[in-house]
Amino acid sequence: VEIGLGGLDLVGIMEESFAAYSRGEAVVPPVGELLLEDPPGEVHIKHGYIRGDEFFVIKVASGFYRNPESGLPSGHGLMLLFSRKTGAPEAVILDEGYLTDMRTAAAGAVAARHLASHPIRRIGILGGGVQGRLQLRLLESVTDCRRALVWMRDAGKFQRYRSDLDAPETTVELAEAPAEVAAECDLIVTTTPSTTPLLRARDVRPGTHLTAVGSDTGGKIELDPEILGLADAVVVDSLSQSESRGEVYRAVEAGAIRRKDVLELGDVVRRDARVRTSEDQITVCDLTGVAVQDIRIAEAVYRRLENERESER
Amino acid sequence: VEIGLGGLDLVGIMEESFAAYSRGEAVVPPVGELLLEDPPGEVHIKHGYIRGDEFFVIKVASGFYRNPESGLPSGHGLMLLFSRKTGAPEAVILDEGYLTDMRTAAAGAVAARHLASHPIRRIGILGGGVQGRLQLRLLESVTDCRRALVWMRDAGKFQRYRSDLDAPETTVELAEAPAEVAAECDLIVTTTPSTTPLLRARDVRPGTHLTAVGSDTGGKIELDPEILGLADAVVVDSLSQSESRGEVYRAVEAGAIRRKDVLELGDVVRRDARVRTSEDQITVCDLTGVAVQDIRIAEAVYRRLENERESER
Repeated sequence: VEIGLGGLDLVGIMEESFAAYSRGEAVVPPVGELLLEDPPGEVHIKHGYIRGDEFFVIKVASGFYRNPESGLPSGHGLMLLFSRKTGAPEAVILDEGYLTDMRTAAAGAVAARHLASHPIRRIGILGGGVQGRLQLRLLESVTDCRRALVWMRDAGKFQRYRSDLDAPETTVELAEAPAEVAAECDLIVTTTPSTTPLLRARDVRPGTHLTAVGSDTGGKIELDPEILGLADAVVVDSLSQSESRGEVYRAVEAGAIRRKDVLELGDVVRRDARVRTSEDQITVCDLTGVAVQDIRIAEAVYRRLENERESER
Repeated sequence: VEIGLGGLDLVGIMEESFAAYSRGEAVVPPVGELLLEDPPGEVHIKHGYIRGDEFFVIKVASGFYRNPESGLPSGHGLMLLFSRKTGAPEAVILDEGYLTDMRTAAAGAVAARHLASHPIRRIGILGGGVQGRLQLRLLESVTDCRRALVWMRDAGKFQRYRSDLDAPETTVELAEAPAEVAAECDLIVTTTPSTTPLLRARDVRPGTHLTAVGSDTGGKIELDPEILGLADAVVVDSLSQSESRGEVYRAVEAGAIRRKDVLELGDVVRRDARVRTSEDQITVCDLTGVAVQDIRIAEAVYRRLENERESER
């Protein structure tokens, strides 16, 4: 069966998953990790459930960095759904990482909806990969802005980026440097695997909101810690994960911010109060990805499939 | 596709898996555990691979103890095979725990082959469940003995046990007590979830080999620690697991044996020397189940399936 997401309110589903997480309703044991050699590869096994939900979910995601040498994708992924009441396996979703990409992009839209200033005149994207395109696609559902400026390390890939982009109303232009994106845009999403900061504090204008989705380990970083230090609000998807990975981890380590001043995205969603008290403030949201997102998107996809089957009968 | 095991040398496959494990060729990270409430359930996620093998394997097994109230089996299980070289998912085996049952029974046959005295005049089984039947089925491939004596807590289930038994050459009789089994049999396999010892040291005759497969946690026990204390050789499938579960764990805790005197089954298989130096000795093998068994049986089933497909073309 083909996986389709059309008709699903992914942004709303992610809001609810973050809220459930911050309410403490998620049970998410430690991630299992399998490291392979010759060729090198890593496999992560995430599992968990949300209290009251119908399923528990196991997600397997792998990265084998030499696969592209043989023309294969480096990442593979699948999700398994089981009945929370009986343990019976209900579905195997061979999504090859697609649902992870989509839930990450939808989380970026959640951050924009709750944190960005108004109006947004231009959207900036750092990174020309899948996530750099999907963020624009999902942002169409939460902002009125249809102008984007994109920076990517290899400018030669911009034509491909533009032709693969599935954000029909948005026009994109290419920036020569990350600082140019910061100078022009009010809403910036960073989607690179960079291990050195791409933006400096002096690059960022008042009124900017930045969402960082690229850094998901302790070694990656896209924003200079000083940016978080000067921000009026810093938000993360998971306070506990931010103790060991992501921009917030690095900024706390660098002494630029204090852990107790960081907000959790699900709490922001729950309160539904504007974090931003003026359109001139700078805000940062650091997303490292949490298992509740996987759980809720898998459940939503499966439920839609079940409904389709019902209506075919 | 139906899972079939016919034609597979399960006992040989298990010998090889134990040998690989004891040679240190297995990579088996900690088991993932998910605990559920309302209704209570537990899920274990085992994963790992054997160096040089083609696949890595993830096994999901669940126990929901209230399922039988709704007419459902309490346990569910499946195995996933992935390419060790690329991470690509290769197979989902919805075995519902069948392969786990079979590999456990085959491990009992490995223990009997390497540890039991000769000749075996009668085989004893404690426990009237699936494992109590499968052990007899697999023992037919490693012993000449075709007479069995079985004890089960609920004697009313013996007719059912006998009619479900798939060990065509073996005749079974019912014992009234565990001690009667010990008095009559040279090879005894205990397959119960008991939390108090079923056999005492005074019950066990010289020349007996006992294999304990029921106890797989720290709380279960089938053999009085004194039995392990008087045994001439004590063998476990996994020395590291025996530090926290099974008969050996309990006997070490009770001071009946010393950890350093315990042998690992894979080392016994590798040396291929008889552990037993006389037919009058008492030996014990404690099996708590190791992931290499799951890995190798899943690989064997999948490879056979691939071969069948090849030959159909």
